[in-house]
Amino acid sequence: MTQIPSQHLSDTAQVDQQSIQPFPNSRKIYVQGSRPDILVPMREISLTPTETDDGIEENAPVFVYDTSGPYSDPSVKIDVRKGLADVRSSWIEERGDTQVLSGLSSSFGQERLDDPELKSMRFASIRNPRRAKAGKNVTQMHYALQGIITPEMEYVAIRENLKLEKAREAGLLDGQHPGQSFGASIPKEITPEFVRAEIARGRAIIPANINHTELEPMILGRNFLVKINGNIGNSALGSSIEEEVAKLTWGIRWGSDTIMDLSTGKNIHETREWIVRNSPVPVGTVPIYQALEKVNGVAEDLTWELFRDTLIEQAEQGIDYFTIHAGVLLRYVPLTAKRVTGIVSRGGSIMAKWCLAHHKENFLYTHFEDICEIMKAYDVSFSLGDGLRPGSIADANDAAQFAELETLGELTKIAWKHDVQCFIEGPGHVPMHMIKENMDKQLECCDEAPFYTLGPLTTDIAPGYDHITSGIGAAMIAWYGCAMLCYVTPKEHLGLPNKDDVKTGIITYKIAAHAADLAKGHPGAQLRDDALSKARFEFRWEDQFNLGLDPDTARAFHDETLPKESAKVAHFCSMCGPKFCSMKISQEVRQYAKDNDLTDEQRAIEAGFKEQSERFREEGSIIYKQV
Amino acid sequence: MTQIPSQHLSDTAQVDQQSIQPFPNSRKIYVQGSRPDILVPMREISLTPTETDDGIEENAPVFVYDTSGPYSDPSVKIDVRKGLADVRSSWIEERGDTQVLSGLSSSFGQERLDDPELKSMRFASIRNPRRAKAGKNVTQMHYALQGIITPEMEYVAIRENLKLEKAREAGLLDGQHPGQSFGASIPKEITPEFVRAEIARGRAIIPANINHTELEPMILGRNFLVKINGNIGNSALGSSIEEEVAKLTWGIRWGSDTIMDLSTGKNIHETREWIVRNSPVPVGTVPIYQALEKVNGVAEDLTWELFRDTLIEQAEQGIDYFTIHAGVLLRYVPLTAKRVTGIVSRGGSIMAKWCLAHHKENFLYTHFEDICEIMKAYDVSFSLGDGLRPGSIADANDAAQFAELETLGELTKIAWKHDVQCFIEGPGHVPMHMIKENMDKQLECCDEAPFYTLGPLTTDIAPGYDHITSGIGAAMIAWYGCAMLCYVTPKEHLGLPNKDDVKTGIITYKIAAHAADLAKGHPGAQLRDDALSKARFEFRWEDQFNLGLDPDTARAFHDETLPKESAKVAHFCSMCGPKFCSMKISQEVRQYAKDNDLTDEQRAIEAGFKEQSERFREEGSIIYKQV
Repeated sequence: MTQIPSQHLSDTAQVDQQSIQPFPNSRKIYVQGSRPDILVPMREISLTPTETDDGIEENAPVFVYDTSGPYSDPSVKIDVRKGLADVRSSWIEERGDTQVLSGLSSSFGQERLDDPELKSMRFASIRNPRRAKAGKNVTQMHYALQGIITPEMEYVAIRENLKLEKAREAGLLDGQHPGQSFGASIPKEITPEFVRAEIARGRAIIPANINHTELEPMILGRNFLVKINGNIGNSALGSSIEEEVAKLTWGIRWGSDTIMDLSTGKNIHETREWIVRNSPVPVGTVPIYQALEKVNGVAEDLTWELFRDTLIEQAEQGIDYFTIHAGVLLRYVPLTAKRVTGIVSRGGSIMAKWCLAHHKENFLYTHFEDICEIMKAYDVSFSLGDGLRPGSIADANDAAQFAELETLGELTKIAWKHDVQCFIEGPGHVPMHMIKENMDKQLECCDEAPFYTLGPLTTDIAPGYDHITSGIGAAMIAWYGCAMLCYVTPKEHLGLPNKDDVKTGIITYKIAAHAADLAKGHPGAQLRDDALSKARFEFRWEDQFNLGLDPDTARAFHDETLPKESAKVAHFCSMCGPKFCSMKISQEVRQYAKDNDLTDEQRAIEAGFKEQSERFREEGSIIYKQV
Repeated sequence: MTQIPSQHLSDTAQVDQQSIQPFPNSRKIYVQGSRPDILVPMREISLTPTETDDGIEENAPVFVYDTSGPYSDPSVKIDVRKGLADVRSSWIEERGDTQVLSGLSSSFGQERLDDPELKSMRFASIRNPRRAKAGKNVTQMHYALQGIITPEMEYVAIRENLKLEKAREAGLLDGQHPGQSFGASIPKEITPEFVRAEIARGRAIIPANINHTELEPMILGRNFLVKINGNIGNSALGSSIEEEVAKLTWGIRWGSDTIMDLSTGKNIHETREWIVRNSPVPVGTVPIYQALEKVNGVAEDLTWELFRDTLIEQAEQGIDYFTIHAGVLLRYVPLTAKRVTGIVSRGGSIMAKWCLAHHKENFLYTHFEDICEIMKAYDVSFSLGDGLRPGSIADANDAAQFAELETLGELTKIAWKHDVQCFIEGPGHVPMHMIKENMDKQLECCDEAPFYTLGPLTTDIAPGYDHITSGIGAAMIAWYGCAMLCYVTPKEHLGLPNKDDVKTGIITYKIAAHAADLAKGHPGAQLRDDALSKARFEFRWEDQFNLGLDPDTARAFHDETLPKESAKVAHFCSMCGPKFCSMKISQEVRQYAKDNDLTDEQRAIEAGFKEQSERFREEGSIIYKQV
């Protein structure tokens, strides 16, 4: 059960201390855009210099994509009771197409606000929501189609480029392997105009509800960096609001590009408010979960009116994208009857039950255009849910799954007709050789609208390790063109993830996303790998730790056997010990080659270097003396 | 430093207790071959029945590949001081082509045996070694080429089939997805004759030194189940003999198909004896490590004679395969000069240093046929080392790496000329899109001799998580045709792995190997996935745990939030809670569909079931009542 604190949460709630520790040797920087209020955050990792025989050689800092928001900025005083500072109200206001309402439009939202018993857990300052003026469409896609480059678009363009200009000029990007992008159209440099064109084309989206003014905009699309989502949220069986906020701040610290609040317990309205007000990343939800709570778990009692009120309730809180299982059609339900694992999507199974019970078509499908009307009044993006995704290897790529995908393709076009931003959810459990078919079919059915997959898990036999079974599939599908990967934690199938699980899931998926960026040949993606490998080769241990996705763990692992500070400059580690370090030997080989002008391989081979070998013997024959 | 116990290890050493715990609901079984002394171990996992409305439906047990040896057989009394019982002496003896020597042929081995100071750590009963009679060749390849099916070949044939006959007859394999094997030739059933033919062809090997009589034979090849290797071994900086034996028993418990002893500290001769005598799986080494110890770390002092003595020393202990870096040619060394990370193979860097210092060709290359003579006298297999593998994404697939691979192809043919079994080592660090080129080139250069890769790691940016960065690449390359995957632990690049790291590395690689078996369409590979998924769907929690690669962790994760025994039969877990379990809802949907004859989808769609929906509402409308 959700814990209700004896004291008011609005008085007592504190930021998770682990989430606001500065990263080692890192500095939060902001890159300014064309106007002073476009300030795009990045993390600058400073490196130590390389010591050579000729002296000191500086190593340029590396700038990394930073999802952690103000939490990692030591100059910002974080108070989760007040929420994050405003980022984009002025951008929204100056467009002149929205109005601040006098109160909440959702009757449920108003009910909760009026309930004195909820005061103890309610976020202190509920703002009046903003909505499009009558007849206006406030989606980024709508602006893009009109040729307007919004501050949000410029923001993400700067963000995606990661200050690569200097590295590009210095030739540091020249060594990167050309990628294989399977028909993506990735430019060398992301311009605001490219962002606009991609959004207009429906090939990318910026999930950015006008009521989520704390948002630092980000973009999803196959021609941009691969993104990851972390799920948080309580179930009826555990977790408090404060814990969920801590999971949010902890998740974005490690790289979660968006957060889905999948709460299904009590008080999820209040939980959500706390999450959105404290989230610098887009927040997604599956509104049917809350709708089902409202009818006490009786799927058949769900109605369009109740669901509609839920959408408005959440839209006015600032949710950036909604998973809508509108593709679960009545006629598809029997296609799942012979499956090994039936329908494993919670939303999918709820809608299937509703359809069967009423023998009616899914009301999310029949009311899809009504939903579009709500989406465009707040700029909520569709995440078209894959309610019939396979829940086991056996059920992969079956008739039910692909029938739904085709319907999602039709719905994509309807969303686009309304200029509503839209992406598509995908599986699930799929063996490796059947993953590409998923991606190809999605690109075809949905005309390149961004794909957003859960894994896929490449085998079912490792409960407790499904971050890994799915990380394999996630890396592959992202390479093939998937825009965002929904993480899977080690607890998948077994229980609710705790903070450790959230971190493990996020890091695993950052690996998958980055491996895909490398394989696609995303410009500059290899810079961080190269910098880390150079640090590794030069025994700059601190730099190696700091450039990694998780400096804390790298350092802790190293220090388990060699805790002394002196070991941080040693030319070996405990893995091989001093005498057997290949990097050490290899450096000696290189030094020798350099001294002997062997860099020109042909010349070296032709000239031979027999007499020089004598010198080598004399100079440094013992690989490492001190044991 | 290696710990020398105050008491004699031969008196005090004990088996690691964690390594001999029985697996839950599992039974060690032995499948008898054509003769009573061919007894092939498997683990039979018993399942609970499915409860249906019509009563109880049995679930057939699942047989899984079992690398754990006698340690998981409760009827065997394990005493690591005595080593494992003999498995194959009679098979070797009856071939009549070997002789037991009167003492050790290696002068170093004899020296160690004669040293009274080593008694405290020496394995108690050193057997006299066996060697081929003069002029005889005792390799499995030699027998295969003569048309002989050895007991070892029959053994692995039985082992690979995993008692699938019953499941096949029951139609349980029919639902498996056809795979994509990229030109492999995987038969529906493995016969001893198929094994023989594959070995004769050089496309598979059974690493089985005639002095490793404790061995339970296994096979490596692209047409067999994908295998994994776990590295153990101390460095100069840590770990004792007893710890290393514990890592061995722990590693094979979780599925390591072979073990490499990469010890580089002191007393590695003695450590190795303990490991081989207690190992039911093939043991590999990199003999150059020990050779370098013998010359106090001065690579230039290495000689063929000293190396030759090391090979014989280790061959007579029973090492099943040797990594030999014979492809690191003098002229290739300068090709590494411009690399980001130079030469990262320890053996490769040692040989590069030797070549440069002497300006001579690698003595492993020039003496390759002399090495073949030793290999065939004991049936030691070649693991042709990739001394020039890339150590970073930047260095992947470069001229040095592929030049060496071509040389390894030439050496493969020379080994085959001597009927010596041979497999090839591969990278390393490779971005996803460049992995397939490695596999294709290896198949071509080495004429389908088995490939054995380390990962590859698909990005450099996650020290502390390189089991995952590499697990992704490992799954992919195994799908493309790699026969064995060398695990990488979370400590890679940072320190010596402990027991926990060994387990994490093994499980990660079992996942990669199995994901590849599924993708290749290996017959019956999907059976375990299907059984586990069925158990999951039916809320048979215990079966779900027990069918997994790591029942302990799965159970512990589940119990973290729902520890009570009653939760093991609950139709939900803490992940979603009772009201939102899609599996639960889906079962209800299925039951409804079944009651209403909806399995025939067309009929269902045409007939409609409006009036039946009323019944559904009445019967079981609340998804889960009890919260």
